[in-house]
Amino acid sequence: MIRKFFPYGRNNLKRTYRHYILVLATMLFIQATYSQEPKKLAELLGYPKDSKLLIIHADDMGLSHSVNAACIKAFDSGGITCGSIMVPCPWALEMTNYVKDHPSLDVGVHLTLTSEWNLYKWGGVSSSDQISSLLDAQGYFYQSVEEVGKHAIAGEAKKELKAQIDRVIAFGIKPTHLDTHMGSVLASPELIKIYLGLADEYNLPILFPRAYTSWFPPEVAKALNSKIFLLDNLFMLEPAMITGNWIEPYKKALTEMKPGLNEIIVHLSYDNDEMKAISQGHDDYGSVWRQKDLDMVVSREFSGLIKANNIILIGWRQISDLMTKQNSN
Amino acid sequence: MIRKFFPYGRNNLKRTYRHYILVLATMLFIQATYSQEPKKLAELLGYPKDSKLLIIHADDMGLSHSVNAACIKAFDSGGITCGSIMVPCPWALEMTNYVKDHPSLDVGVHLTLTSEWNLYKWGGVSSSDQISSLLDAQGYFYQSVEEVGKHAIAGEAKKELKAQIDRVIAFGIKPTHLDTHMGSVLASPELIKIYLGLADEYNLPILFPRAYTSWFPPEVAKALNSKIFLLDNLFMLEPAMITGNWIEPYKKALTEMKPGLNEIIVHLSYDNDEMKAISQGHDDYGSVWRQKDLDMVVSREFSGLIKANNIILIGWRQISDLMTKQNSN
Repeated sequence: MIRKFFPYGRNNLKRTYRHYILVLATMLFIQATYSQEPKKLAELLGYPKDSKLLIIHADDMGLSHSVNAACIKAFDSGGITCGSIMVPCPWALEMTNYVKDHPSLDVGVHLTLTSEWNLYKWGGVSSSDQISSLLDAQGYFYQSVEEVGKHAIAGEAKKELKAQIDRVIAFGIKPTHLDTHMGSVLASPELIKIYLGLADEYNLPILFPRAYTSWFPPEVAKALNSKIFLLDNLFMLEPAMITGNWIEPYKKALTEMKPGLNEIIVHLSYDNDEMKAISQGHDDYGSVWRQKDLDMVVSREFSGLIKANNIILIGWRQISDLMTKQNSN
Repeated sequence: MIRKFFPYGRNNLKRTYRHYILVLATMLFIQATYSQEPKKLAELLGYPKDSKLLIIHADDMGLSHSVNAACIKAFDSGGITCGSIMVPCPWALEMTNYVKDHPSLDVGVHLTLTSEWNLYKWGGVSSSDQISSLLDAQGYFYQSVEEVGKHAIAGEAKKELKAQIDRVIAFGIKPTHLDTHMGSVLASPELIKIYLGLADEYNLPILFPRAYTSWFPPEVAKALNSKIFLLDNLFMLEPAMITGNWIEPYKKALTEMKPGLNEIIVHLSYDNDEMKAISQGHDDYGSVWRQKDLDMVVSREFSGLIKANNIILIGWRQISDLMTKQNSN
């Protein structure tokens, strides 16, 4: 889930970047790391240059059994092409075991620094005394991205995020990509730098919308564009978009989709006792919402819209494989 | 749950105790700590001397939402008198919040050193680098009490068990008693010593059946008897006892109940998706079992048997309050 993708807002982040030293440090980091030519992804994947490529991504795997079961149903029916696991959550092992038994599934790490529900909680996978800046007084992750941004010490966040990736690998899975739960790794320039660094260290594609490069100085944006397969468009349903008919905003997104790399994020679960209990007092992205997203992605209407709009479904795995191939050349 | 209350068996534990130095150390500890006269509990609580006192105890609160909801239903209907919380579990906060809002509920700490289900996991509440002897390669508690007994370093177990009690207190609850998930604090003489020490440190009653004092040298047994309110009889349904009619073994226990302090442990939940998923591949004490235990404790037949056999229901809170009163005298 990325409920507040940039919790501080663009303007705040821009202001932060005006701080000269930080800008310089970030620029130097990115320029040193990202120096290749821009990629033409569709062609590199063997599709026509102007293809509308679409990743349909299920967030929050591992959060609950209800989420896992719904994601497995969506994988089976072709309603999603990939998803990512919240490693610190109690049901992560169920999902990683399933992925181990179904190695063709396209699954990444949903880098997690928040525990946002009121009564169902988790902390980090690292030793808690080594990540105390990430934990509240009760030993759980903070509820909001704002609190993460305020309290997180960069070194501790990096340690925890690496531990999450390493744990998935230790479970016997090769993650296909990295993305971010509630956008928490985008909560500060330091965290963004860590996120980019992890992509480089593990040689994995990451969720990073092209629009966000506008927050950076032009040279940094250019460097990013030349190294990362940026998302040309990211669509995630937000409360304000909801109309009577659940599929309408998705229909609009699919109908208006442009050539390039697109991603639709969905939040799946069953509207059952477990998910109702998890999301009590929290309708947005709660159990009813997730059941509706599930019903939609497995519907004929949704798959019909994809076909009717000449959209090519891909997963992060294809991009990850491409990166591996490029690196070995 | 106390699936294997003494995993090593009586004989093994007796053999262990023959180790002279350990016996001596344990004896010295217990003799130093437990030196009062035996208690006549029924009279101290204001009941006739030969009363059949019965605690009906729900284990495993906090394990899942399903368990919490079932325990709340059983509290509301008077089917249980008390229960205890597994503090490291993801749903502990839901239960502690409920208890904070319902302070008359009689709730203790279900000291936990195991994570026994196959796909739904937790570790300790302490920093994992400080309790590495309690954790498996994946960072979770071991699945079995045998593994706890084999790997646990006493100091690390003590740190974790104290942290569980302290966390419940930090959540704003005064626990009424301590008991043990799967009997894991009884997995070795060192762990038993820690368990007795925690009872003393927090001045809380503990689950400790009188029968188990026979494992100790007579002087130790006598000292234990004079200090702790020992359970004269503990009944917990085991797989071998199950007949066609779920209530039969409970009926036998209630009908044959003797004067003194008795406890019946039940394992409650709904047989719903969440609990089915948690207990998959694990019928004993699984979701069907727990639904049957729930249906039974809230049934008229169960409450009728209690009345018909002149059994007086009490909770650990009355014993805890008595200990507090005695200490202040």
